[in-house]
Amino acid sequence: MWYAVRIVRAELISIGTELASGLALDTNSAWLAGELARLGVEVTRHVTVTDDRPAIAAELDRAAGSAGIVLVTGGLGPTDDDVTREALADAMGVPLRTDQASLEQVRAFFVRLGRRFAESNTRQARFPEGAAPIENPWGTAPGCRARLGEATVYCLPGVPREMKEMFRQAVAPDLRTLARGAVIVTRTLRCFGAGESTIGDQIADLMAAGRPVTVGITAAEGLISIRLITEARDETTAETLLAQDEADLRRRLGVLIYGTEDQTLASVVGDLLRQGQHTVATAESCTGGLLAKHLTDVPGSSAYLLGGLVTYSNRGKSDLLGVDPLLIERHGAVSEEVARQMAAGCRERTGADFVLSTTGIAGPGGGTPEKPVGLVYIALARDGGAEVKRYLLGSQLPRSSIRERTCATALNMLRLRLQ
Amino acid sequence: MWYAVRIVRAELISIGTELASGLALDTNSAWLAGELARLGVEVTRHVTVTDDRPAIAAELDRAAGSAGIVLVTGGLGPTDDDVTREALADAMGVPLRTDQASLEQVRAFFVRLGRRFAESNTRQARFPEGAAPIENPWGTAPGCRARLGEATVYCLPGVPREMKEMFRQAVAPDLRTLARGAVIVTRTLRCFGAGESTIGDQIADLMAAGRPVTVGITAAEGLISIRLITEARDETTAETLLAQDEADLRRRLGVLIYGTEDQTLASVVGDLLRQGQHTVATAESCTGGLLAKHLTDVPGSSAYLLGGLVTYSNRGKSDLLGVDPLLIERHGAVSEEVARQMAAGCRERTGADFVLSTTGIAGPGGGTPEKPVGLVYIALARDGGAEVKRYLLGSQLPRSSIRERTCATALNMLRLRLQ
Repeated sequence: MWYAVRIVRAELISIGTELASGLALDTNSAWLAGELARLGVEVTRHVTVTDDRPAIAAELDRAAGSAGIVLVTGGLGPTDDDVTREALADAMGVPLRTDQASLEQVRAFFVRLGRRFAESNTRQARFPEGAAPIENPWGTAPGCRARLGEATVYCLPGVPREMKEMFRQAVAPDLRTLARGAVIVTRTLRCFGAGESTIGDQIADLMAAGRPVTVGITAAEGLISIRLITEARDETTAETLLAQDEADLRRRLGVLIYGTEDQTLASVVGDLLRQGQHTVATAESCTGGLLAKHLTDVPGSSAYLLGGLVTYSNRGKSDLLGVDPLLIERHGAVSEEVARQMAAGCRERTGADFVLSTTGIAGPGGGTPEKPVGLVYIALARDGGAEVKRYLLGSQLPRSSIRERTCATALNMLRLRLQ
Repeated sequence: MWYAVRIVRAELISIGTELASGLALDTNSAWLAGELARLGVEVTRHVTVTDDRPAIAAELDRAAGSAGIVLVTGGLGPTDDDVTREALADAMGVPLRTDQASLEQVRAFFVRLGRRFAESNTRQARFPEGAAPIENPWGTAPGCRARLGEATVYCLPGVPREMKEMFRQAVAPDLRTLARGAVIVTRTLRCFGAGESTIGDQIADLMAAGRPVTVGITAAEGLISIRLITEARDETTAETLLAQDEADLRRRLGVLIYGTEDQTLASVVGDLLRQGQHTVATAESCTGGLLAKHLTDVPGSSAYLLGGLVTYSNRGKSDLLGVDPLLIERHGAVSEEVARQMAAGCRERTGADFVLSTTGIAGPGGGTPEKPVGLVYIALARDGGAEVKRYLLGSQLPRSSIRERTCATALNMLRLRLQ
């Protein structure tokens, strides 16, 4: 009976005027929600509030009233506007006390960095009475764990690196114990090559409510993610349910699925190149280095990436890739012919088995009725010739989207060729 | 009396299980908060909730009780789990009605795209009684504007492009009227070359509470932003207050400040190159194309970027840049000597006035006690020689941070040279 298990619920509170005002983007909440899902803890709500003590205390109260776990990030620094500790004490109705062990750790951290210990930093070792400090191995702000009503509250710093490390070391082990009995298993399938609505139509029956596996779709820059979530009393049952749906999805979507979990088009292409002992090189105009960047996002990519040439200007295309200036004059830099010569020139210069080239109009300016913003040519050259494809990615898209989508399309061309 | 003006407050609600669960990152709220600040509307709170009708209705109620403006994004699609319209009707205590004009627009959109109009799409033209539709020029989901208690609620789609366009066309003009009488002026100064705490120490007195200008600092990948905000009855007073603080900050921080507002190191370097009629090229190892990508993020960069060479492998360094393989063998690819030869080789091949080269250990593997993760050499070659600098960016940083910081450091070297 998969639906009978108890699900632990959590709410997230992000603290900081810079977040509320939009000066900084909160990436912590999405990361935490993902980690919590893997631990069988469901996140139903995030709140972002300014550095305002009564407002934070009110949010703590409200969250502790509706969820068993409350995770707070931010507001633990040494300055006057860091008031998470005070707000938590207010909500708990207790005073703040200095924790000597934490104070020593904060001091030791300053000594280690050779920095002066300012008096204001003692604030960072003060916690609500009854709260247990959580050590911060990477920074000066310790966190804490406290009881508020029926809920457990964890306060962590807002610096993502420190927050993540402390979550792994101190919070995750707690939650594993709490969530015992409930097994939530998730799988993510990554797709490219069709739109969200097209894929949605093909799998609509699997996305219907009330099935044992919840199937959802999201899209970002043409990359489609399908997430499967299921809950069960034990892992085997959950895994079996997921495996059935995954097999069904793979039958329906075929090569549209390029990977699972955190795989990227670049990492999948990298695996295929490595398996086939092939090499690759890039010749980029409109993507301006982004395609090589994606390939080198993958550690160890030097094994197959022989080189990349960024020829954003016409002169660069001729000087570095040997593209005939007359060809550029006749057909324009954004043309099938130039894409083909760029790829051929790069293959000659690098000796790579495969070369991807890109040339297009990324905007916002430079579009004409014949060659609108979003027009892109991508060539894939290999032993025995080259194929060139023409795409209209959409003149309404911003420059960054056109560049990202061009890279994804190019990597996907190579993936389909290698598979 | 700058403090006497009325400030309009807004709260933001993002709707979507994919956001609450961490599968997707909410970038809409930060964007909206920034736009609202420019309009004199202060955002004090964002909430993210799942696609749950009673939960959304409760959040709408709560937000309308504490702010004059409530901005909702998401949950306006055609599927069963898009329940923003229903939740708003619940909160308002009214039924849903079909808006014929909106229905025609949704239909027309499908015809334009050559797509079949599914019956489920009629849902998108239903709004709470008394709500006014907001046209969506870029997608199928119209938004709406409604009164809830004392507050005005705007519902916009979650797709960022559609949301932004509708905000600009329909919401911003409304808010300009509402906020009349309150003038909030902001300025952002962009800095690079010193840490957040070092800069914070230099301007601590300006960051103190109770001053007419609020000064705040944020940091991301070594880039420091200082934001100045002031409120006044009229724009001249506000601008004068800001100008005084800005002049003071510029005196103290000097060349650490590279730009204002949305300027980037790459756009500032681009302006300087264009002004001096100089050209640039790149030779990248550890940054693998990211440096060229930053330069080509700037529209029109083909005027000064002659080319980029990505030589991530040793073979690429020798084949494409003429780096002596014996030199690589003797000193290693991550060395001052190789950085220098990469830059010299790139300068020879491209004829650029300036060349930036990067070689380093981006991790996560590949570090040794002598050459730890985060060790980076950056060369700047020009007529008359090259300077090479060695950096230890921190072995604890993730690969993506090391690559981003290397690019910022390289661009900053060139900026300081050009200024």
